[in-house]
Amino acid sequence: MTSGNLRLYSFWRSSAAYRVRIALNLKQLAYEIEPVHLVKDGGQQHTAEYSELNPQEFVPVLMHGNRILRQSTAIMEYLDDTWPEHPLLPAVPRDAQRARAIAQMIACDIHPLNNLRVMKYLESQFGANQAQKDEWMKHWISVGFEALEKVLANNPSTGSFCEGDTPTVADCCLVPQVFNAVRFKVSMKPYPTIKRINDECCGMEEFKNAHPTAQPDAE
Amino acid sequence: MTSGNLRLYSFWRSSAAYRVRIALNLKQLAYEIEPVHLVKDGGQQHTAEYSELNPQEFVPVLMHGNRILRQSTAIMEYLDDTWPEHPLLPAVPRDAQRARAIAQMIACDIHPLNNLRVMKYLESQFGANQAQKDEWMKHWISVGFEALEKVLANNPSTGSFCEGDTPTVADCCLVPQVFNAVRFKVSMKPYPTIKRINDECCGMEEFKNAHPTAQPDAE
Repeated sequence: MTSGNLRLYSFWRSSAAYRVRIALNLKQLAYEIEPVHLVKDGGQQHTAEYSELNPQEFVPVLMHGNRILRQSTAIMEYLDDTWPEHPLLPAVPRDAQRARAIAQMIACDIHPLNNLRVMKYLESQFGANQAQKDEWMKHWISVGFEALEKVLANNPSTGSFCEGDTPTVADCCLVPQVFNAVRFKVSMKPYPTIKRINDECCGMEEFKNAHPTAQPDAE
Repeated sequence: MTSGNLRLYSFWRSSAAYRVRIALNLKQLAYEIEPVHLVKDGGQQHTAEYSELNPQEFVPVLMHGNRILRQSTAIMEYLDDTWPEHPLLPAVPRDAQRARAIAQMIACDIHPLNNLRVMKYLESQFGANQAQKDEWMKHWISVGFEALEKVLANNPSTGSFCEGDTPTVADCCLVPQVFNAVRFKVSMKPYPTIKRINDECCGMEEFKNAHPTAQPDAE
């Protein structure tokens, strides 16, 4: 599909960037990757040039031509608004609401608590050591997944994917969060529905090509 | 406007509930308030009955008839999808993207870090005292407002409100966050654009009627 000119400022391991990579792949939109290394040189997201693009100094930023698009879930909405084919949201408002709510359970209530900047602040304000930081990380993922499992399990709206039988914004958020959970050794045993949906997604080319290890800047 | 049957599970001081109250008022939709006291009895959001409604045990939940709607920003999208009059989002995709991105800057990257459950966990995991918790709170609001001020200031898309001259989801998120900032004694001096927009909003009936102190459960 003709996408105009899409350039994604991305870091291979960033879950917010991973979400947008999945969304772009699901929509079959071509894009270039512009790597921003979040650790090297004290974090390339803090350069004056990048800070101009995004004053939050976060990835991702999606450039559509000269248009600067920030915030992963707002970027996904824009993709659907701009290119209606291969929708990331169900057509029925109540189903779209549920898909968005699941996305927000992850994007608001799990991920931001586990951000790099939060880990750094726990270190500087409370002298947190590695074990305490890992514990913090696992705590918020577990609390979030416990609620999410309840929302997904035994609900007739849950299908092969979080909402119905087509991947939505909810799955774009779920898969990167499970990747993070596994990285931090959170057991997926208590979350069989999350695990089942994640496995389903991970079998698809669109998700495989968005995976951190498949990125040009992977280490 | 006929709204069917809308019932909002709300706590007067919750900023996520405050967002949805503003949104409902802007859309001129009638609704009933069902108070959920987040502190009394160890938090009424933790009862089995409420946890059934929302496994995250957060307010707000909006009931539309028997339909359970969770997550404030996903609820606002549903209101626009269901009742197109008095839209909370601009019609042009790039403007809608910007409004949503501003909403997410607050809903993802400021508010969840300052949630009650996070304060409690800082206490239990790091023995944080009141001064340290206040410092934590102010830190994330300040970091967030600094970026937000840059996004809003000197940008031709910013009008009387965050995006253009009509209130959007961005303003629904901004005003409750400023209320919180003032409550935690964050000076608004470094953020003149945020302050100007907040003042504009606070002059409107729709925002006044959504204010924490105007709620039936205000203390």
